[in-house]
Amino acid sequence: MRIGLDAMGGDFAPKEPILGAIEALRLLEPETSIVLIGDEEEIHRYLPDDLSHRIEILHTPKAIGMGEHPVKALKEKPEASIPTGIGLLKMGKIDAFCSAGNTGAMHVASMFTIKTIPGIIRPAIASLMPKEEGGFGVIIDVGANADTKADVLEQFAQLGTIFARGIFDVHQPKVGLMNMGEEESKGPPTIQAAHQLLKMDQSINFIGNIEGRDLFNSKADVIVCDGFTGNVILKMAESFFDLLKSRDKLDPFFERFDYEQIGGSPILGINGNVLIGHGVSNRNAISHMIFQAEKMIKSEITKKIQEFFRD
Amino acid sequence: MRIGLDAMGGDFAPKEPILGAIEALRLLEPETSIVLIGDEEEIHRYLPDDLSHRIEILHTPKAIGMGEHPVKALKEKPEASIPTGIGLLKMGKIDAFCSAGNTGAMHVASMFTIKTIPGIIRPAIASLMPKEEGGFGVIIDVGANADTKADVLEQFAQLGTIFARGIFDVHQPKVGLMNMGEEESKGPPTIQAAHQLLKMDQSINFIGNIEGRDLFNSKADVIVCDGFTGNVILKMAESFFDLLKSRDKLDPFFERFDYEQIGGSPILGINGNVLIGHGVSNRNAISHMIFQAEKMIKSEITKKIQEFFRD
Repeated sequence: MRIGLDAMGGDFAPKEPILGAIEALRLLEPETSIVLIGDEEEIHRYLPDDLSHRIEILHTPKAIGMGEHPVKALKEKPEASIPTGIGLLKMGKIDAFCSAGNTGAMHVASMFTIKTIPGIIRPAIASLMPKEEGGFGVIIDVGANADTKADVLEQFAQLGTIFARGIFDVHQPKVGLMNMGEEESKGPPTIQAAHQLLKMDQSINFIGNIEGRDLFNSKADVIVCDGFTGNVILKMAESFFDLLKSRDKLDPFFERFDYEQIGGSPILGINGNVLIGHGVSNRNAISHMIFQAEKMIKSEITKKIQEFFRD
Repeated sequence: MRIGLDAMGGDFAPKEPILGAIEALRLLEPETSIVLIGDEEEIHRYLPDDLSHRIEILHTPKAIGMGEHPVKALKEKPEASIPTGIGLLKMGKIDAFCSAGNTGAMHVASMFTIKTIPGIIRPAIASLMPKEEGGFGVIIDVGANADTKADVLEQFAQLGTIFARGIFDVHQPKVGLMNMGEEESKGPPTIQAAHQLLKMDQSINFIGNIEGRDLFNSKADVIVCDGFTGNVILKMAESFFDLLKSRDKLDPFFERFDYEQIGGSPILGINGNVLIGHGVSNRNAISHMIFQAEKMIKSEITKKIQEFFRD
């Protein structure tokens, strides 16, 4: 297994991505290697001798900045670390590509190069939400699509189900539709229409509408929402964690809100494993993103999505 | 000042509303009285002698249940406590009406009887969010409108501004538009259009987009969003409080997330002060809803909204 990592991505690059890769390698299976895409000289500065045989370096000194316009930057810097990594994934030279760099560039490069899986209307970004009774739920979408129609939400439910089945090892993940009330008749027309589609969908285990209060309980393993709502939820959950941390109120459950423990958000619905990390990722967050990539590769999520939508 | 309270509304009625009214009366100015709308016999059971001169009872034994369909229930039980209270408000016999009963019935009865203020497209429900640096922000809408256009969102900003000015005593409340990114170009078309309207609106102090992570910081005093997103945010914040409480992690800041301390959510944009309480309101929550009603009456929010939209 070969996992690609953008050594130039994120606010603390290249140091933290490189140190994160090293941390991860010490825990990954010995046959797993990491391909670091970034400035060779910088990488060598941090690389310990004992791991050098498990790290390959693709010298890519250019990076797309965090504030750059994705499409413009990708056009002007095709040799930057993000398009290079996505290109390696496309060619099958790596099994997953992770970056804490420019999210928009990761998204656009994935859509244009790796491409959407046939049958998928809109790929989505998934993220994990800790459950009080243990484990995590997956929330999809958290920001790839600001506006979604009912059939797109139905596909998010299917994508989330395949992901949860692979990552959480639950046979029939419970799917909940984020809404402003439990009744079928609640919410905007799109959500009401999505409710009907989900109810009729035999491929998922739909449990009905859920509300903002159900994110951390065990009602649903898969939380379906548009990218606007999901993005607000994700950032609000992150701010809870920050408040708890700064007020010294963390406990083992609340610690699982930490994005560092979660690591990265996969783009689901494209022909490859792409994970996006938080811009402020430190080595710990990077290593967890790599572990998540490993899980996605092992559980063959992308292949399963391709097979599901082929029918 | 006369505040009307639905003694039959909420999961713990009539006991908790009645005891809440008594708690509130002990702290309200002596010239303020409460009109309890509910079963006279039940009310007399809890009423202490020393306050009886400040409590009027309107015998209304019928109630609209929490699960009843609002329009149907209002048609079938025009003599129930909610339509009776709303009717009293319409006739000017009370200065505000509070209920922890059926939210939909409160909303529908308000719209049909108290009526929307001329110029207002859609009334909205406001709620308070605690700020880490002290005080509260107002979030509008939290559930009255599942789907909103840009011009409606602009009115929410105006309503929230008038409310914040009256309740928080800030001259130029900072208005933030809830979005999935800070840039103007972010979000669904409606939100982008609303951004442009808010930017041009001279009557408000627009500070730009805010994100889910900004709810509890001091970026904005008024948080503008559609009722769907606001409802998810409100319920998520409530569940966060419940988690903190059950895990024994409360502190003075986190205690301010407690709906009991907030009390009720006003419907803004109608010709009268109507406050909706949580179904699970206990006496403490009820008394805080009454204090909020008192603040709304004193600061003449409704009159100020009427004047603003008259122009």
